[in-house]
Amino acid sequence: MARSDGRKPDEIRPLRLERGAVKYAEGSCLITLGDTHVLCAASVEDKVPPWLKGSGGGWITAEYSMLPRACLQRTARERERGAGGRTQEIQRLIGRSLRSVSDLEALGERTITIDCDVLRGDGGTRTAAITGGYVALIDAVNWMREKGFVSRSVISEAVAAISIGVVMGVELLDLKYDEDSSAAVDMNIVMTDSAKFVEVQGTAESAPFTEQRLARMLHMAQHGLEQIFEAQRECLNTPL
Amino acid sequence: MARSDGRKPDEIRPLRLERGAVKYAEGSCLITLGDTHVLCAASVEDKVPPWLKGSGGGWITAEYSMLPRACLQRTARERERGAGGRTQEIQRLIGRSLRSVSDLEALGERTITIDCDVLRGDGGTRTAAITGGYVALIDAVNWMREKGFVSRSVISEAVAAISIGVVMGVELLDLKYDEDSSAAVDMNIVMTDSAKFVEVQGTAESAPFTEQRLARMLHMAQHGLEQIFEAQRECLNTPL
Amino acid sequence: MARSDGRKPDEIRPLRLERGAVKYAEGSCLITLGDTHVLCAASVEDKVPPWLKGSGGGWITAEYSMLPRACLQRTARERERGAGGRTQEIQRLIGRSLRSVSDLEALGERTITIDCDVLRGDGGTRTAAITGGYVALIDAVNWMREKGFVSRSVISEAVAAISIGVVMGVELLDLKYDEDSSAAVDMNIVMTDSAKFVEVQGTAESAPFTEQRLARMLHMAQHGLEQIFEAQRECLNTPL
Amino acid sequence: MARSDGRKPDEIRPLRLERGAVKYAEGSCLITLGDTHVLCAASVEDKVPPWLKGSGGGWITAEYSMLPRACLQRTARERERGAGGRTQEIQRLIGRSLRSVSDLEALGERTITIDCDVLRGDGGTRTAAITGGYVALIDAVNWMREKGFVSRSVISEAVAAISIGVVMGVELLDLKYDEDSSAAVDMNIVMTDSAKFVEVQGTAESAPFTEQRLARMLHMAQHGLEQIFEAQRECLNTPL
Amino acid sequence: MARSDGRKPDEIRPLRLERGAVKYAEGSCLITLGDTHVLCAASVEDKVPPWLKGSGGGWITAEYSMLPRACLQRTARERERGAGGRTQEIQRLIGRSLRSVSDLEALGERTITIDCDVLRGDGGTRTAAITGGYVALIDAVNWMREKGFVSRSVISEAVAAISIGVVMGVELLDLKYDEDSSAAVDMNIVMTDSAKFVEVQGTAESAPFTEQRLARMLHMAQHGLEQIFEAQRECLNTPL
Amino acid sequence: MARSDGRKPDEIRPLRLERGAVKYAEGSCLITLGDTHVLCAASVEDKVPPWLKGSGGGWITAEYSMLPRACLQRTARERERGAGGRTQEIQRLIGRSLRSVSDLEALGERTITIDCDVLRGDGGTRTAAITGGYVALIDAVNWMREKGFVSRSVISEAVAAISIGVVMGVELLDLKYDEDSSAAVDMNIVMTDSAKFVEVQGTAESAPFTEQRLARMLHMAQHGLEQIFEAQRECLNTPL
Repeated sequence: MARSDGRKPDEIRPLRLERGAVKYAEGSCLITLGDTHVLCAASVEDKVPPWLKGSGGGWITAEYSMLPRACLQRTARERERGAGGRTQEIQRLIGRSLRSVSDLEALGERTITIDCDVLRGDGGTRTAAITGGYVALIDAVNWMREKGFVSRSVISEAVAAISIGVVMGVELLDLKYDEDSSAAVDMNIVMTDSAKFVEVQGTAESAPFTEQRLARMLHMAQHGLEQIFEAQRECLNTPL
Repeated sequence: MARSDGRKPDEIRPLRLERGAVKYAEGSCLITLGDTHVLCAASVEDKVPPWLKGSGGGWITAEYSMLPRACLQRTARERERGAGGRTQEIQRLIGRSLRSVSDLEALGERTITIDCDVLRGDGGTRTAAITGGYVALIDAVNWMREKGFVSRSVISEAVAAISIGVVMGVELLDLKYDEDSSAAVDMNIVMTDSAKFVEVQGTAESAPFTEQRLARMLHMAQHGLEQIFEAQRECLNTPL
Repeated sequence: MARSDGRKPDEIRPLRLERGAVKYAEGSCLITLGDTHVLCAASVEDKVPPWLKGSGGGWITAEYSMLPRACLQRTARERERGAGGRTQEIQRLIGRSLRSVSDLEALGERTITIDCDVLRGDGGTRTAAITGGYVALIDAVNWMREKGFVSRSVISEAVAAISIGVVMGVELLDLKYDEDSSAAVDMNIVMTDSAKFVEVQGTAESAPFTEQRLARMLHMAQHGLEQIFEAQRECLNTPL
Repeated sequence: MARSDGRKPDEIRPLRLERGAVKYAEGSCLITLGDTHVLCAASVEDKVPPWLKGSGGGWITAEYSMLPRACLQRTARERERGAGGRTQEIQRLIGRSLRSVSDLEALGERTITIDCDVLRGDGGTRTAAITGGYVALIDAVNWMREKGFVSRSVISEAVAAISIGVVMGVELLDLKYDEDSSAAVDMNIVMTDSAKFVEVQGTAESAPFTEQRLARMLHMAQHGLEQIFEAQRECLNTPL
Repeated sequence: MARSDGRKPDEIRPLRLERGAVKYAEGSCLITLGDTHVLCAASVEDKVPPWLKGSGGGWITAEYSMLPRACLQRTARERERGAGGRTQEIQRLIGRSLRSVSDLEALGERTITIDCDVLRGDGGTRTAAITGGYVALIDAVNWMREKGFVSRSVISEAVAAISIGVVMGVELLDLKYDEDSSAAVDMNIVMTDSAKFVEVQGTAESAPFTEQRLARMLHMAQHGLEQIFEAQRECLNTPL
Repeated sequence: MARSDGRKPDEIRPLRLERGAVKYAEGSCLITLGDTHVLCAASVEDKVPPWLKGSGGGWITAEYSMLPRACLQRTARERERGAGGRTQEIQRLIGRSLRSVSDLEALGERTITIDCDVLRGDGGTRTAAITGGYVALIDAVNWMREKGFVSRSVISEAVAAISIGVVMGVELLDLKYDEDSSAAVDMNIVMTDSAKFVEVQGTAESAPFTEQRLARMLHMAQHGLEQIFEAQRECLNTPL
């Protein structure tokens, strides 16, 4: 089966991470993965959720949204009744993933909010948001260090994410929108740089899958994530 | 490590499935799994969501809620702003799981809504809702067959779910609330009777996990699900 | 006119009060009155509404809801815009009725919330909620006494409620749903054990009624309530 | 006990009914009962609620609101979350009362909405709204007759309402706000011109009451309503 | 072109300002400008918006609403989702206009809310609300002075407003509803007694307009406002 | 008085219009005016608002939003209760401005929605949205022409907008955020290419202004708009 953009089954789309894309944010990154473009902005604020008041520790959370015309069809803004189910699921995933490599107590009573706004969407926006959100988070923590707000290490290792799916019986890495919408199985993997799982979310949209297929998909994800971790390292090693 | 109720690490709680627990529903099941009690009621209605109008096919969806005093502390009703993020995530999971074994076209333009109301909650309510919801669904489909609404087979095989977690470094099957709230890894597995995965949702709350641990958790889940499928079969083989 | 379940005009349905039906609640009662089943759970919390802060006194309030499939037809959950008009009217009535026999100052700055969830509904759910809520309230107050939270007497006497209506020109006691929906007059009476009125709510749905008819309905209500007070006493005299 | 405005216990406040007070409405009445002023406007619209579509019959409904500065203290507008519980209870009562004397089928598929806006409030606003709403309704029906929209009789007899209460142990007719807020028993009676009850709503705010007291209050209400029906007749006999 | 009520192009409608129209308010004014009737009530409250807490200064704000039957057609109440866009625009305009002539610091930490409720609406309700709101504000400030809440001068000069438009190519002053709804240009001018502009809001509904036309409209507005300032002065010079 | 970025009082910020910035939109433009960056995307949809159904004509509307981190401080998303008052005022202004130069009947029953999302905000976002929205609109209409959806001319002439204000007694053109927030007078002017006014919105935040000052501000606006119209022409003359 040929992919619509000519990639091999285990090939990711061209990836670019642009640090500092949001002028006023404490940390930021514009991630482009093919035609999926997500602007990630990290804001540091002197406040914590109610359950952390007085605890001395901080919080990392994420918000996710798409511009109305990010995709082929215009979608309505989520203005009337709060973030919908899909949006909430995504922003909870991004927040959990970034917290899993963070020492929240080291932040003091501060919140880092990672705003992930999809400027263009062609599949894989939630995984791109995690990958780019990590870069924004690192710079926000660096900003805090410069300000003297944190003294010890906050982030223990890198975190990134990728999607895998089964389309017409074949496992594919990093699904574009057209592939994603026809996938029989849809999986998102969040991992750390040391090859540990943070999240494993696999859904059989139509065809329940075997343990063997699960194993193949996990290995394909690891293969793609190695390249993504490399891109994160390179980006962060380049001076802002 | 001893479990608070004396179970072995790979032992599930006492399970009971009571068909027909909701007098007026087309299908229903009260599932009790230790102190987790979920009342599942399947309602058949002559309507479909907008995107299915005129398609000839039907829909299966789920709603999930907890009575305010299902747990140790009273929780507020979700009356003001619609179902919250956690609730929506759960009811989307239940719906997807039941649809994965269903032939929606065979339903005609009808919707089966599975209401899953937690009367008592002690961990694992979402997986119990899937297991009990399957029984309610079967009886609703049987009711439709008696009415002549469906002619061909609707449900291809059984579906059920279980949780697994890592507590104090040990993998445990079917977590109670006290275990769940201190778990480093939290996983929910939805499978079919033929040992295929419908959903794999694993989250590292604090400690990312290795591939080996993932494999052990998946096998523990399969072990527990075999007993649950047996209980479903037995329940459905007993006349109402 | 024969009643659909064979009762005499002034006969109530079989009544059962099951104390302690909600494991984690401070007080609880499952009331079944024919096919009307209401689960009443009393929760004691260390908080009061804003207008009582600093007053030293407490509050008793009620919430009322029906499971979506409590009745013949599925009804939508009240999740989107808060409790509707009918629901608010009912929960205000339950709260007022229970407060009318309570010494709120004796509670200290605490709130007792009586959750009344209708598991099955066949008419008379609001009156059943008052009758069962009283039992749950008594046990919650007993729990408070054991904890040393209250020292003096809180509840002055028993309170219970019943419906009466006029169907096809005949006064009937304790209406079932089919009777209620065709009643020309619909009345709910809340009384105390000493035969005093707490609430008298009579509505002519289609036919305004005379003073003589009002008098007959009030006496019929008193007749039924005597049996209900007896059932409450018996239930509360049996050890939990 | 002397009343703050010098009235006798069974004396109503000065009553005035001003027809046609709302220039553009099909029927209207400004009722002033002491310092309680309610502007009632009846609007006829060519639409019915969903459940009446195709039935050939119509509907009468009411909306109730207070201007923010109708009372001694400013109250916030009910703009954010729809009408509150008290408001809904009141507007349902007004609507039911007016429908009880109306032949809805005679209206055709039209809705008459009675807007009751309290310009000044000093107790008894809901009963004044019923009394004044009746006058507005009559004129709206007359307007419909002139337009040829109705041919047969729509309103069978007059309807009006009054409050009674127990203050410091004494039954009082037509409570002012200061009396109402200190009443031990609070009662609203809606009756027809032929001395039949449409609604009987009695609430023991603090002291449950005996059957004898109930009887005395009902007779006091009837006494006051005779004067109110006389005022309605006089007003409607005067040409607009 | 003849105006429907026979006025000359630069003639305002009959204007009447009735002070003290809201019995319980600290200041109030019923303004009638032809068939546009707006009840303005000023309430003084001991609270300020969050951003002024501790500042020592106060706030003046406005709320605007129409009775459902103020106009030819019934309009729905804005009860469900807060004030709509048009309403918010209007109440922000009224508040800004009144604040522009006020010394907020002189108020102390108090808020004056000007409720502008349209009893009858025939065009120009927002400008009438500003003109009448000014009178209500003056009386509320006088009440504060009598109470000793303010010592120095609060209001520097009078403020009032008027509409102008272009209908069928002709500039018209003080548009009625029928003129307003067919106007090619719609303008509202808020000015002070010393002929300074507070707000200039001109909108070309269909035909963009030249600088010359703008100048003519501004002069027409000034001409009308001179009469309105005169009416305000006369009203405030008459003892309450 | 020196401006913080060294501009002369009547000098606009560097302006850039980038057509086609939104890949999937029918028309689009990224406008950058100094540090104010607004992404304008025009979407053509085959639907119209209810009041235009069956009319044969179309509609042009706008939505406006800011990314949470567009400015120095993070602002919360408007997700909970719909667009706020300021947002609605802005998007109504953008929509009206674009409609004032459009022949809506020529569109057929279609809606063009101009989404204006502020990526970076430093004052003047609403006027930039009008200027950039015009370019996006032109390209959307061109796309419609290519598709054969429109045959006759739709847009009669160019429209653009600019702000002017009074800061420390001096009139300034094209205010940056720091200037805008300390302005005594704040004005937005929308004009057409033929020097006609579409909107004139001047507000005295603290100091009412004279007619002479108004005249000077209007001329300053015209001076700036000439340069902006030139930039629009140049941009649209360059092939996409």
